[in-house]
Amino acid sequence: MTIQVFGHKSPDTDSTGSPLIWAWYLKEIRGEDARAVLLGEPNTEAAFMLDRWGFDKPEIIDDVAEGAPVAIVDTNNPAELPASINKADIRSIIDHHKLVGGLETKAPIEIRVEPLACTATILHKMIGKDLAQAPQGIKGAMLTCILSDTLGFRSPTTTQEDKAIAHDLAQDLGIDIDGYAEEMFAAKSDVSAFSDAELLRMDSKEYEVDGTALRVSVLETTAPAQVLDRKDSLMASMPGVAKEDGAEEVLLFIVDILKEEATLLVPNDRVKKIAEASFDKSVSGDTLVLPGVMSRKKQIMPVLKAG
Amino acid sequence: MTIQVFGHKSPDTDSTGSPLIWAWYLKEIRGEDARAVLLGEPNTEAAFMLDRWGFDKPEIIDDVAEGAPVAIVDTNNPAELPASINKADIRSIIDHHKLVGGLETKAPIEIRVEPLACTATILHKMIGKDLAQAPQGIKGAMLTCILSDTLGFRSPTTTQEDKAIAHDLAQDLGIDIDGYAEEMFAAKSDVSAFSDAELLRMDSKEYEVDGTALRVSVLETTAPAQVLDRKDSLMASMPGVAKEDGAEEVLLFIVDILKEEATLLVPNDRVKKIAEASFDKSVSGDTLVLPGVMSRKKQIMPVLKAG
Repeated sequence: MTIQVFGHKSPDTDSTGSPLIWAWYLKEIRGEDARAVLLGEPNTEAAFMLDRWGFDKPEIIDDVAEGAPVAIVDTNNPAELPASINKADIRSIIDHHKLVGGLETKAPIEIRVEPLACTATILHKMIGKDLAQAPQGIKGAMLTCILSDTLGFRSPTTTQEDKAIAHDLAQDLGIDIDGYAEEMFAAKSDVSAFSDAELLRMDSKEYEVDGTALRVSVLETTAPAQVLDRKDSLMASMPGVAKEDGAEEVLLFIVDILKEEATLLVPNDRVKKIAEASFDKSVSGDTLVLPGVMSRKKQIMPVLKAG
Repeated sequence: MTIQVFGHKSPDTDSTGSPLIWAWYLKEIRGEDARAVLLGEPNTEAAFMLDRWGFDKPEIIDDVAEGAPVAIVDTNNPAELPASINKADIRSIIDHHKLVGGLETKAPIEIRVEPLACTATILHKMIGKDLAQAPQGIKGAMLTCILSDTLGFRSPTTTQEDKAIAHDLAQDLGIDIDGYAEEMFAAKSDVSAFSDAELLRMDSKEYEVDGTALRVSVLETTAPAQVLDRKDSLMASMPGVAKEDGAEEVLLFIVDILKEEATLLVPNDRVKKIAEASFDKSVSGDTLVLPGVMSRKKQIMPVLKAG
């Protein structure tokens, strides 16, 4: 049976590219039957990557069958995976997020988690010298994933390993990193086709903070005006999205990749309290600018307080 | 703060040796402050290893403090770890067991699980060429762990990697594998000092099988007569142990390492039903001999049925 390789729901670049990379490795190097699939429509940057490196869009699946062999990349969170994930035959988990607990396997499997910026960096280390056999597209996907997750090395999640591997890949591919990253971020920044609710859920994680369920959403962009121009309508959509998703509030952080700052929308007093308690600033008006804040994982989640 | 490195409760050889190996690596190669500790009295084979390779017995700890840095080897099961484990600062998890779920971390950490026979084999791969700097004792502990977990390469959990690494270590150390394994197993087989209840809990895991809580215990020995001579008294102790530990039955498998077979004690009709359903044999008397059965992980757990 074919091993289905996938990342998390609402696939970003790493959750679209890493399945392609790992499926290639399983198939071509380990000789296993494997294919990349997606758990939803890829975001615009991921779609750019597919197009740029000549990949067909992987099939989008809804759920997994009981006993079906699967390989998980870029998450270990059951909430971000198909509903039947613990009934599948999980063969491997490769990830760079905190351990959430909840995934279970029937036998020992291959698990590799490292505190690096990007899953593709871990895959690069695991594939080792066999990467020489990879087509350009696989190397291109790796480079794209790393530049995406590190925001062009600007994010504080960036490690020396992510950086060194990206530079090696770029040199091998004859790619100018700055120019290529600019193209990627332009693709990610074009969010005109999405509804407000889609934007709020595009890159979003649910967390319990001091007993309060929060949906913490991030939009990384080089064109923040395009999002901020829609802020009234985005804020008006928040109560509906929160209610549907079982969260009490939606926190939307618009990350300006070039200016290296985040703007949090403050739709009501509750979010104002959360913002002031978490970031130790006083809020006037309906936005809070947070200079230097780029990473939900490193700079938002660790400080978040329910207020 | 010192990183405490430990394996599971009721430490066997791998859960005693692997903490020593990983603490050495963290300290001497990565330059971190680390020390091996134990979550209980090591078994007789583990004690033999400590003595043979010149280690002091690591301190036995009861629990971990909130926020204390720890590194976990040879398990990912919270039930086999200190009660406060999820309040500690877990820095790494290195293991070769199925994923149980339940451990959580606040940030991404280093996790490495591989379907190999022994944690020390994974450590050997992770340490790589830095092992050249290790003292004899660290290499000796690695070899002992691998020979212990593979039962001298007899267990079906044994992989080519475990074997190749053990042979390399033995050659490096000038150790004759067969003779050394015989000494180890003789140490493990000397269980005269233990009470019946201690024997039932020495190498034991609790499982839910079809909704029935079972304590599945294994005694690996080259002197099965020493255990079988005590079988009436062992069986008489089972109800008390089961009750205290919240299990419905205790299944004790006495694994004859040299004959490569297991003998299951059958104290009552309930265990008889379990044995017959699981191993597709009819049981007469109070024992069931299972030729070729050496591994709880590979040959017992996957077939166990509540009957």
